[in-house]
Amino acid sequence: MSAPSPAIDAKRYLADQHALRQFGKHGTGVVRPAFSEPDIEARRWLAGRFSEAGLTPVFDPVGNLFGLPPGDGTFLLLGSHSDSQKEGGWLDGAYGVIASLEVVRALNEAASGPVALVSFQDEESHFGPLTGSQVAAGLLDLDQALDLKNADGQSLGEARKAMPEVLEATPVSLDRFHGFIESHIEQGPVLDTAGEAIGVVEAIVAFRQCLVTLTGEQNHAGTTPMALRKDAVAGFIAAAQAVGDAVGPLLGPVTVWTIGRVEVKPNAPSIIPGEVRFTVQMRDPDADRLDRMMEAAQAAIRSVSEARGLRHGFAPVDQLKPTPMDAGLIGALSEAAEQVSPGRWRRMPSGAVHDASNMAAHMPVGMLFVPSIRGISHSFEEDTAEADLVTGVEVLCAATARLLQSGWRGRSR
Amino acid sequence: MSAPSPAIDAKRYLADQHALRQFGKHGTGVVRPAFSEPDIEARRWLAGRFSEAGLTPVFDPVGNLFGLPPGDGTFLLLGSHSDSQKEGGWLDGAYGVIASLEVVRALNEAASGPVALVSFQDEESHFGPLTGSQVAAGLLDLDQALDLKNADGQSLGEARKAMPEVLEATPVSLDRFHGFIESHIEQGPVLDTAGEAIGVVEAIVAFRQCLVTLTGEQNHAGTTPMALRKDAVAGFIAAAQAVGDAVGPLLGPVTVWTIGRVEVKPNAPSIIPGEVRFTVQMRDPDADRLDRMMEAAQAAIRSVSEARGLRHGFAPVDQLKPTPMDAGLIGALSEAAEQVSPGRWRRMPSGAVHDASNMAAHMPVGMLFVPSIRGISHSFEEDTAEADLVTGVEVLCAATARLLQSGWRGRSR
Repeated sequence: MSAPSPAIDAKRYLADQHALRQFGKHGTGVVRPAFSEPDIEARRWLAGRFSEAGLTPVFDPVGNLFGLPPGDGTFLLLGSHSDSQKEGGWLDGAYGVIASLEVVRALNEAASGPVALVSFQDEESHFGPLTGSQVAAGLLDLDQALDLKNADGQSLGEARKAMPEVLEATPVSLDRFHGFIESHIEQGPVLDTAGEAIGVVEAIVAFRQCLVTLTGEQNHAGTTPMALRKDAVAGFIAAAQAVGDAVGPLLGPVTVWTIGRVEVKPNAPSIIPGEVRFTVQMRDPDADRLDRMMEAAQAAIRSVSEARGLRHGFAPVDQLKPTPMDAGLIGALSEAAEQVSPGRWRRMPSGAVHDASNMAAHMPVGMLFVPSIRGISHSFEEDTAEADLVTGVEVLCAATARLLQSGWRGRSR
Repeated sequence: MSAPSPAIDAKRYLADQHALRQFGKHGTGVVRPAFSEPDIEARRWLAGRFSEAGLTPVFDPVGNLFGLPPGDGTFLLLGSHSDSQKEGGWLDGAYGVIASLEVVRALNEAASGPVALVSFQDEESHFGPLTGSQVAAGLLDLDQALDLKNADGQSLGEARKAMPEVLEATPVSLDRFHGFIESHIEQGPVLDTAGEAIGVVEAIVAFRQCLVTLTGEQNHAGTTPMALRKDAVAGFIAAAQAVGDAVGPLLGPVTVWTIGRVEVKPNAPSIIPGEVRFTVQMRDPDADRLDRMMEAAQAAIRSVSEARGLRHGFAPVDQLKPTPMDAGLIGALSEAAEQVSPGRWRRMPSGAVHDASNMAAHMPVGMLFVPSIRGISHSFEEDTAEADLVTGVEVLCAATARLLQSGWRGRSR
């Protein structure tokens, strides 16, 4: 006979999800960026909850909070992040942290074996890109991380002084873990539009981003004849149109690209703009496609800029490789999804980058999504139906129980 | 026999022009916006210079500085403004103020009769559009002006508290003046390109400006499929292109139009922009042309916005009628230009609005331009050859002497 099947307590799970929401609560959303007062208080509260669930709470020097089971073996790690955007939703990564906490409690009650927990710090890139998991994975030196500054000019090193327990901490070796499952809201409209409850992630897409500067000639908008202008906004409009024309034929079925940031100097109605800086960001599971797109985009910008007598500059292209999820974890999550929510789940890419991308350098990773209503995230309006939240916890619990029962040890595959 | 012909002192003029440059000096330019510390110090210094030139310096409640000759008659008023843009050139309106001061000194020395001086406040629209001359001309109530706020959120009322002499001041009636000649740099490339020294303005062009808001749906740039986006920046690019196509056929030979200000929300690389606000500004001597252009622009924006499922909003259109210059003043300035700089001057429109536009509600106005090197203005790089600066002062002096000698009284024409 197998051990009793672990069962989550939906009420207990929801109570904790709402309890975490109180830290930095702002209307329906939260304001809880890394090392803000609400983030620090939330982490201390989480440490208490981890402890009550039989885990030893351990902070590392960058503020990641681990919950470690007793014993010397390696563990499956569950979790996500509890920091938020400056205007964040109440779920986001906080969903994955509390869902994982509830799974630990359910597993304990069924004596199904130990797993570890984590809430990474600064996933929302307040100081740097996914700072906490980058440092934990050794992809970014702690010293460099401490010099990173937020938009207010405060360094991570300054900010973490508000948490003495972090100042005194030592790193947690990732050798303690043989796999990582991150649960998260989808942050897109795919599941909600399809009326599905669960997404099992196959890969986190590749990413390219370039900051472009177009420089013209700042001048008086009343006195400079049209023919003598070098208008950086007019150049930006033509360049952006040309980028769209150039990348259009290269798009795949799930490619996305965005001009999300546009800064005009001096940005006054009566002054011909002298400079425009803008970002071009692209994502797709196929990194080669993105390289072709970025090349085409830069060629289009170069050509428009030269035709208009503007100068152009490209910052080095930020890039992330695609991160494939582990086949064993995809399998366990898929079987659990079909068991808990038959026919109402899908395999899908993640268009967003997650801490799992950084963990993948060290261990097999998997990801579970629950729907985002109308696809809204990074916004106070972000939400998920309670039934879907609970379904997600059930799937995570069933998948984890399967992995424990089968003696899965990702590292030895 | 006529009185001795007044002669300016080029060295004295240049010394004062450079002395004024020291207030708020920033590299080759100046930072001297209305009621900043350098602006206040410059006004107090100017008051002293006016006094030394035999005029009584008088501040009005909005910070305009007049220099009034003794006696009860009406006077010809000369001047411009000494405030600057936040990143301003050293000449701009400061040219007209010091040029006029030198003319007063030359006229005094030749006993050619009294004229008055003015340096208007906030011509650069730090708080509101040409605030000082608007209030002086009764086109804007003082109380409303005092509530106007600069980009830092400070009100004009707060700012002027740093000048007790302004707080206690009483208005200066424009009935004291029978005409106004404003001298200014051209702020455009026309004279410099043609190698000419003087522009005699025939009219200040008409002006239309609209603030447009496009609203889409803010969302995650990685997880929202292209087909489900309502991207306000993508909409802005298409709308701006459509505006260009729509107004193109309506442009006259001297029409200019500009998108000078673009604000994106939330303006982050990984967030699909939810809102873009931008200005569309148009100038031409023919106001009807501008009305047709603005109508075509709004129709184009409406159509793009509806096709993309965005919402659009238009703020009420700011408008200024064209301001014709007075025939008598144009005549005097033209004769003086031909006398001082034969064949090297032209009549031209002013594409920029000036304090003369507001004065025209009360008295005949004229304007004199000197060249701007490469047409650059509202920039630290703004400059004019010293020889051209001096030629401008000579022309202003000769024109003023002619008007005084002929007993010109604009009001009685």
